Amino acid sequence: MSAPSVVRSVAALRSQVRAWRGAGLRVGFVPTMGALHDGHLALVREAMARCERAMASIFVNPTQFAPHEDLSRYPRDEAGDLAKLASVGTHLAFLPTLAEMYPEGASTWVEVEGLSKGLCAERRPHHFRGMATVVTMLLNQAQADVAVFGEKDYQQLLIVRRLVRDLAIPTEIVGGRTVREGDGLAMSSRNLLLTPEHRRLAPTLHRVLTDTASELADGRLAAPVLHLATESLQKAGFRDVDYVELRDAETLAPLAAAGAHPARVLGAAFLGPVRLIDNVPVMSGSSEAPR
Amino acid sequence: MSAPSVVRSVAALRSQVRAWRGAGLRVGFVPTMGALHDGHLALVREAMARCERAMASIFVNPTQFAPHEDLSRYPRDEAGDLAKLASVGTHLAFLPTLAEMYPEGASTWVEVEGLSKGLCAERRPHHFRGMATVVTMLLNQAQADVAVFGEKDYQQLLIVRRLVRDLAIPTEIVGGRTVREGDGLAMSSRNLLLTPEHRRLAPTLHRVLTDTASELADGRLAAPVLHLATESLQKAGFRDVDYVELRDAETLAPLAAAGAHPARVLGAAFLGPVRLIDNVPVMSGSSEAPR
Repeated sequence: MSAPSVVRSVAALRSQVRAWRGAGLRVGFVPTMGALHDGHLALVREAMARCERAMASIFVNPTQFAPHEDLSRYPRDEAGDLAKLASVGTHLAFLPTLAEMYPEGASTWVEVEGLSKGLCAERRPHHFRGMATVVTMLLNQAQADVAVFGEKDYQQLLIVRRLVRDLAIPTEIVGGRTVREGDGLAMSSRNLLLTPEHRRLAPTLHRVLTDTASELADGRLAAPVLHLATESLQKAGFRDVDYVELRDAETLAPLAAAGAHPARVLGAAFLGPVRLIDNVPVMSGSSEAPR
Repeated sequence: MSAPSVVRSVAALRSQVRAWRGAGLRVGFVPTMGALHDGHLALVREAMARCERAMASIFVNPTQFAPHEDLSRYPRDEAGDLAKLASVGTHLAFLPTLAEMYPEGASTWVEVEGLSKGLCAERRPHHFRGMATVVTMLLNQAQADVAVFGEKDYQQLLIVRRLVRDLAIPTEIVGGRTVREGDGLAMSSRNLLLTPEHRRLAPTLHRVLTDTASELADGRLAAPVLHLATESLQKAGFRDVDYVELRDAETLAPLAAAGAHPARVLGAAFLGPVRLIDNVPVMSGSSEAPR
């Protein structure tokens, strides 16, 4: 496949999107922070299944990292990323500079209340404000018909859906399913930071969440099951377990038990300095394995 | 002139704008809270001078009023407003319902730091957050080429310019000059709430601000001049004077004296329960009267 056109300014991005849309072509968009893996490429394929043109952005957004977090360690590989985008036929790669995204005096924040509380927000209190702000910027810059966000960052996906609806951003948000390694580990750029030993332990997170979701499928009280899940992770070698929780799949309201509404089990835990997250649906009243 | 088409849903608004823009017509937009006066109509004319089609919205946004403020007293006159919009040839009036603007579970806020501090934010701490949020929604809904905001609400105008730049909203923001009554009072929907006696006193605000701006044009120290201005307003019968300040016209940074950068004198004060605001430029190194 041919390499994507690389665009670094909003003006050039908009001019290309305008030309495509003017020619009646639908445009799909996948915002990323780079360090691409098959999970990202699946999101690009999802965009291509829905649109004639697909774009990805690569921007490691500083405002969603806290000072003590891993911004400087976050993996970066522009040439490798562009080769991967080319391999699936991505038409355009948007690689804005920091100054293009945050001009001098930038001082506007987008915040989603409610959904941005709890779960990952406990450990990362300003993370979702930075994410919501940069996603609003990227969507307004791109003016795409569709944008695809991975279900692996489930709280993020719900926040994006909410802000797009609330702020009337004219782009349809699509959730892309989580792509996993052969051993079940959810693909993540952060997996590259794991030591070989931690990499061997990492799939335990998915296995524990899946087992937990299966046990909760019959509607039993969640608290003791979630408690045991946390203990299992700690015993398996996870240093800190931020949370293992049962939540409403649409509102993220905490649930005492799975019931009529779709529910999800979400977890976050550390292996050494690396924080891994994952989530799986609860298949209530069904013996089907959660994906 | 013919009456504007009245549209109450975002879908209908977008469909009309898409048709116009598809036909190569530029679209100008004037967001309002209704109770229209010649100041609003001047903004519509400004939009028409720049675009082939002009739209105005009328929506009294509850989230920019505090519980103790005058939301319920805010003047409303849909038929009169539509007649006024017709009189200047407005092509479309967007009158969304509360549910169209704030669907169930709406929980997203847009905040502009810095510019939203001080001046009117002292008295109305959440006002600009509500305003910034609804303006973001309206601009995203309208997808206009140009939107016109009055200079009379000067802090608001700067906040809107900033958020539109920071969030990459693809609409050009134009400031429309303040339209005044014959006696200098800036036109405002709130003027309708003044008693006849207070209406006679009201032009004093503009006169004091204009005199203050003239005195400060030579670069003298502002503090004593601003102090005297506050006293003049109090003596004239203004119950509370929220502020009379000299600010940088672009950043709203407080200034000790007018100098090289464009500066502005801004004031806010109460006549009975009605809070009036106004502002005028400082014409440094010129004998020209501030407008």
